[in-house]
Amino acid sequence: MAHLLRTAGRARSSIVGPTAQAASKVAAAVWRRQYASAAAVAAVSPDNGEHAFFPGEPSQPMLKTQIPGPKSKAAIERLGKVTDTRSLNMMADYTRSNGNYIADLDGNVLLDVYAQIASIPVGYNNPNLHRAATSPEMVSAIINRPALGNFPQHDWADILETGILSVAPKGLTQVFTAQAGSDANELAYKAAFMWKRQQERGGADADFSAEDVNSSMNNQAPGAPDMSILSFNKGFHGRLFGSLSTTRSKPIHKLDIPAFDWPQAPFPALKYPLDQFAAENAAEEKRCLEETERLIKEFPKPVAAVVVEPVQSEGGDNHASPAFFQGLRDITARNNVMFIVDEVQTGVGATGKFWAHDHWNLQTPPDMVTFSKKAQTAGYYFGNDALRPNKPYRQFNTWMGDPARALLFRAIIQEIERLDLVNHTAATGDYLYSGLQRLSERYPQDIQNLRGQGQGTFIAWDTPRRDEILKQAKAHGVNIGGSGMEAVRLRPMLIFQRHHADMLLERLEAVLKQ
Amino acid sequence: MAHLLRTAGRARSSIVGPTAQAASKVAAAVWRRQYASAAAVAAVSPDNGEHAFFPGEPSQPMLKTQIPGPKSKAAIERLGKVTDTRSLNMMADYTRSNGNYIADLDGNVLLDVYAQIASIPVGYNNPNLHRAATSPEMVSAIINRPALGNFPQHDWADILETGILSVAPKGLTQVFTAQAGSDANELAYKAAFMWKRQQERGGADADFSAEDVNSSMNNQAPGAPDMSILSFNKGFHGRLFGSLSTTRSKPIHKLDIPAFDWPQAPFPALKYPLDQFAAENAAEEKRCLEETERLIKEFPKPVAAVVVEPVQSEGGDNHASPAFFQGLRDITARNNVMFIVDEVQTGVGATGKFWAHDHWNLQTPPDMVTFSKKAQTAGYYFGNDALRPNKPYRQFNTWMGDPARALLFRAIIQEIERLDLVNHTAATGDYLYSGLQRLSERYPQDIQNLRGQGQGTFIAWDTPRRDEILKQAKAHGVNIGGSGMEAVRLRPMLIFQRHHADMLLERLEAVLKQ
Repeated sequence: MAHLLRTAGRARSSIVGPTAQAASKVAAAVWRRQYASAAAVAAVSPDNGEHAFFPGEPSQPMLKTQIPGPKSKAAIERLGKVTDTRSLNMMADYTRSNGNYIADLDGNVLLDVYAQIASIPVGYNNPNLHRAATSPEMVSAIINRPALGNFPQHDWADILETGILSVAPKGLTQVFTAQAGSDANELAYKAAFMWKRQQERGGADADFSAEDVNSSMNNQAPGAPDMSILSFNKGFHGRLFGSLSTTRSKPIHKLDIPAFDWPQAPFPALKYPLDQFAAENAAEEKRCLEETERLIKEFPKPVAAVVVEPVQSEGGDNHASPAFFQGLRDITARNNVMFIVDEVQTGVGATGKFWAHDHWNLQTPPDMVTFSKKAQTAGYYFGNDALRPNKPYRQFNTWMGDPARALLFRAIIQEIERLDLVNHTAATGDYLYSGLQRLSERYPQDIQNLRGQGQGTFIAWDTPRRDEILKQAKAHGVNIGGSGMEAVRLRPMLIFQRHHADMLLERLEAVLKQ
Repeated sequence: MAHLLRTAGRARSSIVGPTAQAASKVAAAVWRRQYASAAAVAAVSPDNGEHAFFPGEPSQPMLKTQIPGPKSKAAIERLGKVTDTRSLNMMADYTRSNGNYIADLDGNVLLDVYAQIASIPVGYNNPNLHRAATSPEMVSAIINRPALGNFPQHDWADILETGILSVAPKGLTQVFTAQAGSDANELAYKAAFMWKRQQERGGADADFSAEDVNSSMNNQAPGAPDMSILSFNKGFHGRLFGSLSTTRSKPIHKLDIPAFDWPQAPFPALKYPLDQFAAENAAEEKRCLEETERLIKEFPKPVAAVVVEPVQSEGGDNHASPAFFQGLRDITARNNVMFIVDEVQTGVGATGKFWAHDHWNLQTPPDMVTFSKKAQTAGYYFGNDALRPNKPYRQFNTWMGDPARALLFRAIIQEIERLDLVNHTAATGDYLYSGLQRLSERYPQDIQNLRGQGQGTFIAWDTPRRDEILKQAKAHGVNIGGSGMEAVRLRPMLIFQRHHADMLLERLEAVLKQ
């Protein structure tokens, strides 16, 4: 990866050219005067001697009003007239947000460990992303958005190779780009169905039958086959019709939406602390694996793929062991179904590995890995040529991704590399986890089932008064999210440092004391 | 609309500020030196005295090699290693494309009347879009992408009101934003299902039953209801699982993908020229309307919505009369199902109205109108508060659209307004249609069923040697697309002018002569 990134840097310089670089500097200076300085509440000088990644970041949260304050309330009311605002958490002012801190319209500045539902990787108003966003390449990508399948831009291979593909999971060498996590998963499902039906027909050279062709146009088998994707109880894979059929997180996600009758396997319900329940947890994982294999063999609609998250995120931050996932890889391989790992939320560093499934030490890689969120672009990686449909235009749409967002992901990758943010996050996560463990001893009722040890900052715990704690945290200057019914989930950015962890622990303790 | 746009202009100036404007000017100058000049093959001085919208646009196509030439071939080979290139039409160089002209790596420059599958509205490297793309607001939107449902940016209402909503179809005052056409349609379908089930339960205050909740988690009715969306034969609404279930364009779009068993009504097969087959066509439309209503009443899975394109585009450019669509509006209203108009391809000016359904003179507006492509952002408009789900988080996802693309759409709207491009396109379309009519008399075999009169530049015709003609057009310097099995479809940009039409007609004639 490092090698590829160095190449990327060189290629970019030569494309950008000196005049453009000069303009970019001017733009950056303007940007700093106008925005960054407004957010610079105070220079950071962490007590612990840490080198701060964001020199202009606030030294601590600042609370000026209740949240929402009067200005935010007026803005919310206005927005409510033209779109639904009932899920609104905070009306943000991104021009005044900086690094790990999110600002609102009323001058409140919060430490943000939710980060746009886990989708901001390297800080608000990151200067290096700013540079990428003002480059001539980016501007062209924004105003000349191509239909990538028909008219790709001449440097698309370069952008992929120096960006998205430079961090491809081991063993996966190709990518199909998409718009967001939901459609990335659905495109992977489509690839799996095409692959499976092609096998049944006898390979890539076997043509569709007339019956296939005619029945497909009527939404009937065999052309529109009665096949399925297997997912897990409490899994979340998106909310479009196909992805929602594999989502089993909460009723509010699914109510009133027609769904495919696809199989659902149990996901291990582990007991914590893990070392006290080793035998029980191993038995639970074995049970879930056996049931998964039984469903693959017996479910009436043949299974084309199994999809799973490395950590079930929306469903409540449910973890399983590497052995469980190794078992899934074995089961899918021996039953000839695709193994799709949904890294939409876990990918891009937060677990202390670039991809969470790097923790599993698989012998053979997943067949497809989907990504979005922190990548700021989306799609699925694959390695096997057989996953390319046998004819063109089978996996196709107008835009097929977005070069602008692919350029941004490349800049994010470069920033991750420059600051060694994956290893950094592994270390910061260990530090934070230890602090939470100490807190859990003092507040055992409010920090139950602490999980995510050794998983970077991808940490969560359960508490019966979850919603109240999240609300109180905001009043103490920290923006935290929940998952499932009673989990507090931490999703800080990759630039979250020890001094931020200290502040989070302190303020959390103040909340729990109440 | 004009009023709103003027307001938008003022708001933007005050936000941007003088220093940012200075930087933006520098950036624009750099841009011109680096890109625009490279594409300026010659200044335009149209023979017909027309004022050229793009002063630096080439005066005509330029062919230097066969397409693909040697540089393009090498680039395609490289790209083919990491993604599927079999649908590739042309490897484009957007840095050298300008206005209506698309360039490739080998120095070929083509008049582009396909425009990224109908998705480029105001020309490649449009200087005003360039300005919008380098504004501080845009840069912030790119690098600080919000989770709009939870943490919208403070100026989101303003961006919507001065952009997307300033061109809202008559009677529709609210919007739900999305990523692309497919998910825009699926979100509209979801809104329709929630609305319909809510009615069945007795209104917004009636809560879900325990059975609803439990069955939804198992993908079973009543929680995941066995309801449907009715679409039309040859319609195209996207290729994700829900939208693909309503797509009936071609087998290659549908083969091997599981689909919902939803109803399909016949779309009128009109005969041309229309004035010679008035009675026959009226009877055909009546037949289709009757069958639509029969399906709504009798299809075993209750219909929540009817979705239709104003002109079926991917399915072969099939038109119907305003009376047909008025009939659909009446049928859906009296049967209490939603009427969704899919304006993904027809919207944003190309038919000579901003929305194609403006041609219909409906008494009551559609319930939802979906958009994407030329808008460069996507979503659905609606007017009825009952289409807001009864609880938050029911219509939700991480990004819920993209402020960067919403800002771009605002700049596109301003450009359309500045140059009066909708009326311009209506006039240019009439001019082009007349020219094609003359050509069709000379080449009746190759220009059959000419259609799109009075529909701006949204023009198509049939020919038995379609694919050969498209290929030959490229060799004559014109990039044209097809639709359905034998239609040539014209989808020029809104800045397509008479002198471009003359050139297109000339070169087309040269192709047909062969």
